[in-house]
Amino acid sequence: MKWPDSVTLKEVGPRDGLQNEKKVITTEDKVAWINLLSKTGLTYIEITSFVHPKWIPTLADAMEVAKAIERRKEVTYAALIPNQRGLENALEANIDEIAVFMSASETHNLKNINKSINETFPVLRKVVQDSIHSRKKVRGYLSTVFGCPYEGAVEIDNILRVSDTLFEMGIDELSLGDTIGVANPKQVQEVLEILLKRFPSTKIAMHFHDTHGTALANVLAAIEMGITTFDGSIGGIGGCPYAPGASGNVATEDLLYMLSNMGIEVGVQLSDMLSAAKYIQKKLGRALPSHNLQAALAVKE
Amino acid sequence: MKWPDSVTLKEVGPRDGLQNEKKVITTEDKVAWINLLSKTGLTYIEITSFVHPKWIPTLADAMEVAKAIERRKEVTYAALIPNQRGLENALEANIDEIAVFMSASETHNLKNINKSINETFPVLRKVVQDSIHSRKKVRGYLSTVFGCPYEGAVEIDNILRVSDTLFEMGIDELSLGDTIGVANPKQVQEVLEILLKRFPSTKIAMHFHDTHGTALANVLAAIEMGITTFDGSIGGIGGCPYAPGASGNVATEDLLYMLSNMGIEVGVQLSDMLSAAKYIQKKLGRALPSHNLQAALAVKE
Repeated sequence: MKWPDSVTLKEVGPRDGLQNEKKVITTEDKVAWINLLSKTGLTYIEITSFVHPKWIPTLADAMEVAKAIERRKEVTYAALIPNQRGLENALEANIDEIAVFMSASETHNLKNINKSINETFPVLRKVVQDSIHSRKKVRGYLSTVFGCPYEGAVEIDNILRVSDTLFEMGIDELSLGDTIGVANPKQVQEVLEILLKRFPSTKIAMHFHDTHGTALANVLAAIEMGITTFDGSIGGIGGCPYAPGASGNVATEDLLYMLSNMGIEVGVQLSDMLSAAKYIQKKLGRALPSHNLQAALAVKE
Repeated sequence: MKWPDSVTLKEVGPRDGLQNEKKVITTEDKVAWINLLSKTGLTYIEITSFVHPKWIPTLADAMEVAKAIERRKEVTYAALIPNQRGLENALEANIDEIAVFMSASETHNLKNINKSINETFPVLRKVVQDSIHSRKKVRGYLSTVFGCPYEGAVEIDNILRVSDTLFEMGIDELSLGDTIGVANPKQVQEVLEILLKRFPSTKIAMHFHDTHGTALANVLAAIEMGITTFDGSIGGIGGCPYAPGASGNVATEDLLYMLSNMGIEVGVQLSDMLSAAKYIQKKLGRALPSHNLQAALAVKE
């Protein structure tokens, strides 16, 4: 089997993680936590989302967080942006990279963004164009690639149509999301086989959820296809806050443990990641689903 | 990528799972639970261990359990046997298949069995010979193949020496255990590449732990090498009972979810497995680490 020499992990915990947690973390604690993450070796941290506080009240302090964190030059600080207004705020906050998002399934897009897929395109097109004009890189998130909670299976043609349109707008990278954690390694390879005929592997990232325990197996399937960028959420935060043991986002430290033990260079320190995971577990006040965090805590007890 | 058409899952929860749980399950509940497992489509269930109750008090009712369960002819009911005395009891209890165990690392073998590796061989040899004489199949468990809690890395020569000796004794199948859950897919393929030069893939099973979240990725790596038999513990029981979120044995239903969704025939019903997992979670009185169990419970809430 051939595996890559190095892999990039993109940390989405402060945004994708926290936006799905019930408990509100104070601005001061978010800043301290992001500062911890900045020192782990991570090169990309999605620190917040500039959406209207009505939609995600837990991230209402986006501007304050962005302005208060210590910036390190080796780290790209990104934020999720839904529209023009969000972009203006992000630029004011001196965000390094812009992330936009939509779904491959019509129903999920409608429920999540309150617009059809076709209605979403012009909104994102303007955000992407203005981001490029402001010399910002743009990352696109595509949700429900491997299954939709409302529609079930998602047609490959829908995935391709949205991917094509996002790349045509000018995004630099597309992150393919297994939003409900239903992907399996065979499906990952089948979807990637088709997508990699159109887009280079360096432009594709994978965003897996560990809901059914398959996240790292899916990562393995993806690296075998040449993918070298993976999203993770430290501690596995942003899971299903309604069930104590249920997992959502794959934990960044679980990704790191597997990949670095395979001899793949990641450039991130596991011990530093575990410190940052312990910090946020304490603040969230619940046992987080990260395997490596719980294994580390079990050893100490 | 080439994957097998079908895979066999061997259920070790009632033995390997329960022996590592603090809470004692009543004989009546064990019997009811094993009867549930018998109806899932599983073809191999390790129901107990005939070790001295001093060592594993939670399995002190081995004889009662073995005699009380409803036997289905399509299921092989196996038990773990440490010595001649255990074998006699297992034969009296009409156990279908005998499982013996030892470690690839000297220190783990000493701590676990209270004998050196060389001192263990003649004990197991007699058990294996007498089992064969009694027309019973014998499964061998080899612990700490991918790492030892006391010695760290385990030399491949030690793995080969013990594997050779066990097969030479006459075991039918060898289950390679990642006892502390430290294996990674690269290591799995490296170890299997060497072992499969000596033994056919049909004689090798993999026994992964999900301590660091890598179990299903390791399964994927192993099926790519031609392995088609995997051990699982329903609910993921037998993890680390000291830390609520920490995982040990990979959950059988997590294995089943991934493999069956890949189109690989397993012959086991996920819904039936989840029912049996819910049953034992209730009896053990703690949230079990199985991803699919927690995901199923989260949906219902």
